[in-house]
Amino acid sequence: MTFVIGVDFGTLSGRAVVVRVSDGAEVGTATHDYPHGVLDRALPDGTPLGPDWALQVPSDYVDVLRTAVPAAIRDAGIDPAEVIGIGTDFTACTMVPTTADGTPLNEVDGNASDPHAYVKLWKHHAAQPQADRINALAAKRGEPWLARYGGLISSEWEFAKGLQLLEEAPATYAATEHWVEAADWIVWQLCGTYVRNACTAGYKGIFQDGTYPTREFLAELNPDFADFVADKLEHEIGQLGAVAGRLTAEAAAWTGLPEGIVVAVGNVDAHVTSPAAQSTEPGQMLAIMGTSTCHIMNGEVLREVPGMCGVVEGGVTPGLWGYEAGQSGVGDIFNWFVTHSVPASVTEEAAARGLSVHELLTEKASAQAVGEHGLVALDWHSGNRSVLVDHELSGLVVGLTLATRPEDVYRALIEATAFGARTIVDTFNEAGVPVREFVVAGGLLKNPLVMQIYADVLDIPISVIRSAQGPALGSAIHAAVAAGAYPDIHAASAAMGGVERAAHEPDPERAAAYRELYAEYRTLHDYFGRGANEVMRRLKAIRREAHR
Amino acid sequence: MTFVIGVDFGTLSGRAVVVRVSDGAEVGTATHDYPHGVLDRALPDGTPLGPDWALQVPSDYVDVLRTAVPAAIRDAGIDPAEVIGIGTDFTACTMVPTTADGTPLNEVDGNASDPHAYVKLWKHHAAQPQADRINALAAKRGEPWLARYGGLISSEWEFAKGLQLLEEAPATYAATEHWVEAADWIVWQLCGTYVRNACTAGYKGIFQDGTYPTREFLAELNPDFADFVADKLEHEIGQLGAVAGRLTAEAAAWTGLPEGIVVAVGNVDAHVTSPAAQSTEPGQMLAIMGTSTCHIMNGEVLREVPGMCGVVEGGVTPGLWGYEAGQSGVGDIFNWFVTHSVPASVTEEAAARGLSVHELLTEKASAQAVGEHGLVALDWHSGNRSVLVDHELSGLVVGLTLATRPEDVYRALIEATAFGARTIVDTFNEAGVPVREFVVAGGLLKNPLVMQIYADVLDIPISVIRSAQGPALGSAIHAAVAAGAYPDIHAASAAMGGVERAAHEPDPERAAAYRELYAEYRTLHDYFGRGANEVMRRLKAIRREAHR
Repeated sequence: MTFVIGVDFGTLSGRAVVVRVSDGAEVGTATHDYPHGVLDRALPDGTPLGPDWALQVPSDYVDVLRTAVPAAIRDAGIDPAEVIGIGTDFTACTMVPTTADGTPLNEVDGNASDPHAYVKLWKHHAAQPQADRINALAAKRGEPWLARYGGLISSEWEFAKGLQLLEEAPATYAATEHWVEAADWIVWQLCGTYVRNACTAGYKGIFQDGTYPTREFLAELNPDFADFVADKLEHEIGQLGAVAGRLTAEAAAWTGLPEGIVVAVGNVDAHVTSPAAQSTEPGQMLAIMGTSTCHIMNGEVLREVPGMCGVVEGGVTPGLWGYEAGQSGVGDIFNWFVTHSVPASVTEEAAARGLSVHELLTEKASAQAVGEHGLVALDWHSGNRSVLVDHELSGLVVGLTLATRPEDVYRALIEATAFGARTIVDTFNEAGVPVREFVVAGGLLKNPLVMQIYADVLDIPISVIRSAQGPALGSAIHAAVAAGAYPDIHAASAAMGGVERAAHEPDPERAAAYRELYAEYRTLHDYFGRGANEVMRRLKAIRREAHR
Repeated sequence: MTFVIGVDFGTLSGRAVVVRVSDGAEVGTATHDYPHGVLDRALPDGTPLGPDWALQVPSDYVDVLRTAVPAAIRDAGIDPAEVIGIGTDFTACTMVPTTADGTPLNEVDGNASDPHAYVKLWKHHAAQPQADRINALAAKRGEPWLARYGGLISSEWEFAKGLQLLEEAPATYAATEHWVEAADWIVWQLCGTYVRNACTAGYKGIFQDGTYPTREFLAELNPDFADFVADKLEHEIGQLGAVAGRLTAEAAAWTGLPEGIVVAVGNVDAHVTSPAAQSTEPGQMLAIMGTSTCHIMNGEVLREVPGMCGVVEGGVTPGLWGYEAGQSGVGDIFNWFVTHSVPASVTEEAAARGLSVHELLTEKASAQAVGEHGLVALDWHSGNRSVLVDHELSGLVVGLTLATRPEDVYRALIEATAFGARTIVDTFNEAGVPVREFVVAGGLLKNPLVMQIYADVLDIPISVIRSAQGPALGSAIHAAVAAGAYPDIHAASAAMGGVERAAHEPDPERAAAYRELYAEYRTLHDYFGRGANEVMRRLKAIRREAHR
């Protein structure tokens, strides 16, 4: 009887899970909240931060190793000697500036008040000007890698954040000997070895076909940025499921695990969920549905899918092309609606019946026939990632009447996100990367109305992940592969992952009714999203001007 | 010192006002609620009504004469002998089926359980199939009067309701010797004389250039309808401000007024407000802004204004062409939003501060710069009357983000109705019926934000009526003219009406900012309203299908 540990580093906390190697049973778990959380207003010493900043403190991640891992082992009641490996996954792109030995710059004397010495969390959005310049220049020069990212490099990613570091804090940039994904930094802490995982290197680091953007490109962005890749970024690449190193004595002491056990190459929370959901075969699209949705799928061939987030060789599973797409707002939109648009009469009814407002609106909306509310919405309240790649877009509701009630709009918003998902699926199909199965992980799989609407709108059965802690289980599966318990990720996934296939079947009549509404959605999608009427873009410009 | 009485018959109650002839001072007032209100579910004896029905009981109107008029005189503390005339106005088109002597059919023995024997209130909408046939046939035959109504005869009007009566209750139709506007029926009760007022005859009865729709047209609708005009409708026409007759002994006993005083020709609540607001000169557009908005304006020439409700010679003031336009939803939309889309956090804040939700949202929205909310809406939640004449249209909000708050949408909805008003003003200007002044009456004039937004969007000063009971004052002014106290309505209006000219001036900077947003509104208006994308029409069809 052997076990592996998976540790999932989220935005606000880390979760450790103890998993049985033979069958993937999750026998123990524990979480630890980051003491500093997200720094978005000030540093710990009170130094204020600008708008759109989001930082973290690296020692918080180590605290998870010190507390959540031993707690999970206690919870499992196992002997730590039975653990044969540990795997981790992280938010991305989350960047740590370090010295040569991996010490985060904020821990170097004299740096505590320098915002640029801290971790730039994935949702640090203050590098947008740099991202805009990267995209404009890449388009102008016709850089071959741009199409691998649906035509847009995000402000969240390694190059934009790195260029911001250079231009706003050149001394801190100079002191940065490695510009490290937190996914790799935590592995470095565990095994003492710095290995860049193939997932973030590809999706966030513009590492394609064995190369990064050229020195010439970087120099044209900023002459002092010319050696960014050579000096700060370039390093050994580790394939997913491979061994990064062995647990050091120090990390063994933190975790209570045996020194020398295998430490797997790092990974990203969304991508690592694929094996946990038994979705590593080509054509199995995994949608991690929470506040936003991330779509992960392996394909056998390289295709340029319009509006995808990225395609990376071995980015999800070695030997296959890993595709990623995304919807910027999903659960976030439902939560916004419940918080800001639902009257007291509804919140009071929910309270009186012991339901959440989501549950009550779901119940009311479930009673409706398709189209009964007379609405169509565009789900762009947070912009549109795939397939339009335009964050200047915004949300829309059409069909409102004096008879429109909150449950009507709630249902229309759910449907809009389903239409958005279908647009992505259709685009993959049309690009020659066929989607054969739609698998859901993430918090929204608990809402049966959401699942049924997705099945009816997509008109294919929806499978759902079995585990409630998909990323941590996925990390444990990678650890099992790295430890040699399985020949590859597919085999480990088959034994340790879990999915309920076709948990939600489409209803032919509802699916037919949704085809009509989806046609309306696509007409509006193209009218507002593809340049026929750029009112959304103009409204955002007017709004910014008015706020000044 | 002489006085006149104005009585305004609304949807739920009647209001009597005692007005001094010399200066229009309102010296006494009283209201009386109709005992039966609106019958929209069942008759008084329990007979159920179909959907879209709305009936009233004529004796309720007489009760207003019996109670509100004497009470207003008591409130004024005047000697009834000082009253020289009485004028009335009514909702329209509100139709009473009567015997030859004016007895309402519901008061005839054996008819109490017949829905068709009752008054069909203006908002009785069960004659839509008949209206559709009238419009289709009129368009096919190229009837010359169709353009006088913006291309559409409403289901609310005399012909549609009359055809419904014939087709659903032929015996009741046969027993109907007169098909009488309530505006004229109440005058008949006061003076014993049946006179059709020029306002409803024109706007609701398709009386144009001295004729009604032809016998051939009516026969093609339904052979049994061929003599509808000749048998039920045609009668002496009375000009506005003229004498209909003299107060009968019976009506004198009801009201406490002197027998034999002048009774003015009947009128409609919106139209009669013009002289009360000193808005009877050509180019003065009066907007009665409440749950919906009615626009009334005199012009010197006949023009076909696209999408107007109607143009009638002498329909507002004798000797001028009276134009009417309308916005189907205005205050209704704001009330819908406050009832169904404002969260408990806002309603609780309003309650804690002793404000209404409207007041709190107005306060929050007033703090915003133009365009700061990033939204544009279409104000078609009740369809669009002018200038698109399409009740299959619906509301739209574009620009929603996760940062959108209730006050943002509230302000955007107010702006949308202002853009709708500007569309009407622009259409009149372009059609050669120039709008020189915009005068507001009705409940919404109390909201300073609404008024300021209208001034800024229209980019002309907004005048506001002085009286809080405009229709009743207007009726009193008509009574004064009928009694010979003034030579015509313009003169009476100048002496007795009241308006604050340019009460709200446009701000040049805000007006310039609104020009940009109005351009966005018009682009969406034409895209959704003029056939480029008939999604709203299709959504309503899908909705009806889903409801079956």
